[in-house]
Order: sequence, then structure tokens, then C-alpha cells
Amino acid sequence: PARLLLFGYVSYMLVGWALLALPVSQIQPVAAIDTLFTAVSAVSTTGLATVSVGGSFSPFGEVVMLALIQAGGLGYMTIGSFAVLSVYHRLGRMRTHTVRQAFNLPEGISVVMFLRSVVWFTLICEGIGALALFLMFHHAGVPNALWMAVFHSISAFCTAGFSLFDNSLEMFHDHVGINLAISILSLLGAMGFLIIVDGWRALMGRERVLGFTSKVIVRMTMVFLGLGTLILFVTEPELTALPPDERLMAAFFQTMSASTTVGFNTVSITGMSQAVLMVLMALMVVGASPAGTGGGLKTTSFAALLGLVRSTLKNREAVRFFKRRVSDEKLNMATASLAYYAGLCGLAMFLLLLTDADQTFEALLFEATSAMGTVGLSTGITGDLSDLGKLIVIVLMTAGRVGILTFGIALAAHDESRAEEQDDNLVL
Amino acid sequence: PARLLLFGYVSYMLVGWALLALPVSQIQPVAAIDTLFTAVSAVSTTGLATVSVGGSFSPFGEVVMLALIQAGGLGYMTIGSFAVLSVYHRLGRMRTHTVRQAFNLPEGISVVMFLRSVVWFTLICEGIGALALFLMFHHAGVPNALWMAVFHSISAFCTAGFSLFDNSLEMFHDHVGINLAISILSLLGAMGFLIIVDGWRALMGRERVLGFTSKVIVRMTMVFLGLGTLILFVTEPELTALPPDERLMAAFFQTMSASTTVGFNTVSITGMSQAVLMVLMALMVVGASPAGTGGGLKTTSFAALLGLVRSTLKNREAVRFFKRRVSDEKLNMATASLAYYAGLCGLAMFLLLLTDADQTFEALLFEATSAMGTVGLSTGITGDLSDLGKLIVIVLMTAGRVGILTFGIALAAHDESRAEEQDDNLVL
Ligand SMILES: [K+]
Ligand SMILES: [K+]
Repeated sequence: PARLLLFGYVSYMLVGWALLALPVSQIQPVAAIDTLFTAVSAVSTTGLATVSVGGSFSPFGEVVMLALIQAGGLGYMTIGSFAVLSVYHRLGRMRTHTVRQAFNLPEGISVVMFLRSVVWFTLICEGIGALALFLMFHHAGVPNALWMAVFHSISAFCTAGFSLFDNSLEMFHDHVGINLAISILSLLGAMGFLIIVDGWRALMGRERVLGFTSKVIVRMTMVFLGLGTLILFVTEPELTALPPDERLMAAFFQTMSASTTVGFNTVSITGMSQAVLMVLMALMVVGASPAGTGGGLKTTSFAALLGLVRSTLKNREAVRFFKRRVSDEKLNMATASLAYYAGLCGLAMFLLLLTDADQTFEALLFEATSAMGTVGLSTGITGDLSDLGKLIVIVLMTAGRVGILTFGIALAAHDESRAEEQDDNLVL
Repeated sequence: PARLLLFGYVSYMLVGWALLALPVSQIQPVAAIDTLFTAVSAVSTTGLATVSVGGSFSPFGEVVMLALIQAGGLGYMTIGSFAVLSVYHRLGRMRTHTVRQAFNLPEGISVVMFLRSVVWFTLICEGIGALALFLMFHHAGVPNALWMAVFHSISAFCTAGFSLFDNSLEMFHDHVGINLAISILSLLGAMGFLIIVDGWRALMGRERVLGFTSKVIVRMTMVFLGLGTLILFVTEPELTALPPDERLMAAFFQTMSASTTVGFNTVSITGMSQAVLMVLMALMVVGASPAGTGGGLKTTSFAALLGLVRSTLKNREAVRFFKRRVSDEKLNMATASLAYYAGLCGLAMFLLLLTDADQTFEALLFEATSAMGTVGLSTGITGDLSDLGKLIVIVLMTAGRVGILTFGIALAAHDESRAEEQDDNLVL
């Protein structure tokens, strides 16, 4: 299934490349490497761009990009959800083999139902988001406000972070409504479909089927958002010029952007201190939550690793987190992701330092971390990379999306071969 | 035991600090933070220095330093060996509880015998090394050749990497004999006492008691040395000026220096390209082998992690390496070390970027990696760090040595509580 998955994503990317390379997609000529970069960035929902999206692509090209983003984001969410469901035995009707069938668009009724609800959930979120953004964009005098609203709503929910504005959302850094709308869309997308279902059931008084995983996701997300906002608020010199309320909003937005891996920015990343870049990199590496549209190692993996270190230092027999035992198998999965991440990052950095020796170390590390976590934040060097450097980033974006997902699928497929019940259900 | 261990190391450091702070130890006044730095660097066998060792400390001060290095290196090797032995059940007489007794200098006969043989092994290696270095230093016209030979022999075997020369060993970059002697001493120290015992038994035709671990250590060490040498030889611009044979020797020496965590250099680190710095950092993070004097994550942990990623990608039920199964427990230990390392590094980098914002990102990252792995290579910024920055590096050197060891001890103590046999004996 992993190969099929990679093949699926790559074929999306190639179709996107072909469409974006058509003259009708472009306002001004774009080099082949840059159209490939854009297509890969869209399908992987990264949002890094070597050329200005608004200035280079025609309305048709933008529609193609939006379709790629939607396909990438939705595909990721669907597949991720299946992986989660498949390891969650108690759900009954959802059998593990549906994961595999999902790649071939199966006709089983439960699968169709599930797919349908994910799609509806996505469309409703994006629709409400687009409406809210339209009203605010229109009021702010943004030309072509409807299209801008639709584009940014989908881009936010799919945690793609592509923007048609020249400086991402910097011109709206003091607009509470737009900050809020984008943040909510990104968080909904990043926290994932299953946690929404879980929250919904809890609200309706039904049993919380994914209670443990949801609890971990919510707590970790809150801790990261709180801690990140605090650190950025206190230590970032660039923000000191702002009034306290805008400063807090900017600190929160940038933390949210890195943590959900959406990758919008309301303040310039280029001007940030290296210490804050380090914090953002840490947030980008940890990333979002499983079964959502976001990238990165996942908050749940991070939680499992945290539990492991604590248990080891306390010399405990078993790894526990939130008073639940975490199975060795799932720890191994989290470790494999971490090791894969670290290895890939080290190799990519070595190559990037060879191909783009004129860039600073921290800018390249930030770029690599951003690409692997499918975040899309950048210190501004993306367009200046050499062609080989761009190719490396393309590989990183693909590997960051498909590779980490593969580990999730491997986890699911693994469970398939076991008959007994698990005594935990922390999903990685 | 972990606290006792930390306490032991810290008391060595404090005694060393007090002794080095005496006026009789110094030629010229050295600030308190710098004497503390030197003491911690010596006990942790790191070798980073904020002041010139030869130019700041008197012969008495140098003797104190050498005693600290020997105590740190030998202590580490002894404790590490016990940890290894304790998880190795088949060795019979060596029982797990000796690990704890070792910290209190026990009187059990087997422990004394073991300690004695480690000490003898160390003294013999250092003695032969000192003799060889004396002959070569004397021939090269180095003043005070005997003391220089003793100091550098001990410094190499304990993988401390302190040098009394102003530019480490740069003046001997073309001296085959000295390169060879230092390399052999470092490799013997870094590969550890147990592998020597194992090799010796194999040579004598007896059974290879630590066969599996030894095999992993030897293969991983060879792979790292070979790969590192090749990459440095091909990609480092600084080496292109040298004739091919010297270029190869310099590439090998620098790889060996990072990999064994000894930390000498025969070419300037400051002048190296960022890509090669990245390679050296990777080597420093992986580090040396267990039960030796070197630092880092350990080659065996790396091997286990490599096996895990491979098994996950191949969707195998069990993690295998060299056709042997690796237990989940040991994988967890390797993971905990990796996560501890990554977390510590991220936190330290954030703080260093705040305290020493005038330094470049890569120089600070190199410094932090070097300190955590107790390597001692530096791009030359150590002396220019702020006092807070120096304190952070002091904490890193201590944590790099004691922290990683604690994980090893935790592994040993853990096994104690289990009665059944392990089906693998890969030591982490
Ligand atoms: K993104
Ligand atoms: K060292």
C-alpha cells in the first residue's frame, strides 16, 4: 500500500505539473523547475513557493493549484483517518482491510459513508470559512474578494498556507477577525476529522470512542500553542514595536502557523531572531495531529517519546502517558518516524550546503524543516535556491508527506496481522 | 545510582575547579568561569577550552588537568563496562548488582579483578602511547617532549582531546607516525575495554563472549570511518591544497577525531565548509561505542535505530539487525537517548541563540553538538562566548556525559528486575 500511496501522490503532482506548465496557466513564463515545485508544494500542502503565485499564474492556474491543494489535503485526511480507524479495533464495522481498499476506491457501504462524512465536514468548514473571509476581505476593500476568500479558506483548512497576497497575510497582522478565521480553519484541519467526531459525540452525550487519543491531542496542542505564544511574545525583538494586543496576536498566530503546519505569516520571518527561528523549527518538527491535514512528526508521537524519556529516567518498567500504558509497538513507530526525520534532515542539509553554499546555515535548516513538515514558512530564500536545491526541497516535501504517512500505514498494516486487543489506543 | 553518579562527577569537577583556581596552577590570572569550564571539560573528557591550556596554566595546573582527565575517562570506562557486563547475562560471575556496588568501590573479588584489568589495560595503552609519542616528539624537536608525550597519550586514550599545543595537532598534519599513534590510542579508548577482551579471546581461540555487540561495534565504526573519510576527502575545499596522501590522512584523522569523540584536529575547523561541518556534527552525535571512554549516542544505539527504521519500512513484525532480533526494551533505551539528545540540543540552541546572538547559527550548533558528545571540536568561538553561554556549554558537557550514561545504567538496572534470558545481547 505504501508504494501505491506514493504512486498516487506522485501522479497528482505530475498531472499538476503538466497543467501548470500550460501557457494558459501562466501570466508570465515560469521555468519548468518552478512549475514542478509549485505542483509538488500544492499537492503536499506545503505552501513553499519559488515564484509569486499571484504574479505568475493566471486565474486558471490558480484554480488548478486550488484543486491540487484540495486533493492533497483531503486525500491525506482521508487516508490518515483510515489508518487511525483501522488500528482502532472497537469501532466494529470499520475493518482493517478497508485501509487497503481505500486506495482503490472501494464500494463497501461503510467506507462510502465514512468518505462522505469527511468530505461533507471539509466542505462545510471551508464554506463557512470562505463566507467569513469574504465578508471581511470585502469590507477591507480587497479586490476580487470572493475568489480570495475561497482560495484562502481552502488553503487554510488543508494547512497548505498558499496565499495570493504578496506577503502572505502580513497586511492583516492587526485584523482580529481574519486572524481568528484563519486560525480556526487551520486548527480544525490540523487537529483532524476524528477528534471533531469525538468532540461531537462527547457533546451529544454519547461515549467518547477515541477519548484517549483526543485527550492527548487537545492537551499537547494547547501546551504547544501556549508555550510558543509566550516565548514569541517575550523574546522576539521584531514584535516589540507592536502594541501589546497586536503583539500577543502576532505571537499566537505565528505559533499556530508553525504548529498546525499551515505556514501563513502575519509578520516577516526574515526579520526574526535566530532564537525564535529555533522555536519555530521545533514546532514545525513536532507538527500537527494524526488524521488531520497537517504534517510533521505528530503531537501524539511526541507525547509517546516524552513518556518514554520520563519512564526511562524514572527507571519504570513500562512507558506510561496520561496514566495509560503505551505499547512498545507504537513507541517503535514514533521512534521510526523520529529517526527517519532526523536522518532525512541531516542528509538534506548536507546536500543543500553543497548545492547552495551561499545561503546561511539557519536559513537552509529552516527551509528543510519547513519542507519536511509541509509547513511552508520560509526566511525568503526559496526563490533564490539553485535548481538542484529546489529539487532537494521537492524531494523533502514529498518525503515529509508520504514518508511520515507511510509509517502510519505501516502501523495500521502491522496491526492487521494481530488478533488480540490492544490495551491502549494512542494513535501515532 | 544515577544521582550518585551525577554527584560523583560533579564533586570531581568541583575539586578540580578549586585546584585549578589556586594561584599555583596559573601562569596568568584566569577568570573563575574559565577555570570551572576547564575543570568540567577535563572531567567530562570533552576538551573544549575557553583559554589556551598551555598559555594559562602552570605545570602543576597541567598535572591537575591530567588527573581530572584520567579520573573522568577511567571512571566512565569502568562504569560503562559494568553497565555492559551487567546486561550480559552469560558472563556468569559478574552479577548485575555489581553495577551498583561499583559506585561504592566494593570488595567482591570479581569486581576488584575486573577493575584491576581495566586499569592495567588503560595504563599499558597509555604507557606504550606515551613512549611512541615521546620518541616522535623528541625527534621533531618539541621542547619538554616527555611531558608532552604523557599528556597527549592520556588525553587521546581518554578521548579528551586536550592539547598543550596552541593549534591542537595542526603542526603535525603531515606526520604519519603521530597521526597513527593518536588515532590508535583514540580508537582503543573509544571502542572500549570489552571489545578488546572479546578480540583477545577470539585471537586466543576461546569463545567470543560478546560476539554480537563486538561485531556491531566493529562494523559500524568501520562504516563511519570509511564513509566520513571519503566525504571529507572529496568535498572539503580546505583539503584540496594538500598532496593526495596528506589529504587522505587529514580526512581520515578528522573523521576519526569526530567519530571517537576525541576532538583533536590537524586542520583548522574554522576554515571548513558548512557541508563538512554538517558531516562532522552527524559523526559527533552518533559518537563512539559503549563501555569505552568516548561520548555520543553510541554506535550500537544508532545501529538499533537503523534496524528499526528498516523493519518499519519493510513492515516486519520484529526489529532485526545483523540477523538478530533486537528487543523492544533496548530499542526504547536507544530511543530515549535520541529523544533526550534532541530535546537537550534544541533547548540549548534556543538559549545559546539568546545569550550569544552575535555568533552564527552553525558555529553555536557545532559547539553544542560537540559539548553534548564530549568531543571538543570547535569552530573557535568557545573563548568568545558570554559567561551565560559558557555556563550553558558547561551544563551540556556534564549532561552529555552523565545523562547518556544514566540511560545506560537505567538499562542495566532495568534488566536486574527480570529473571528470564534475553535472546539478544546488543548493548546500547
Ligand atoms: K503548509
Ligand atoms: K573529547
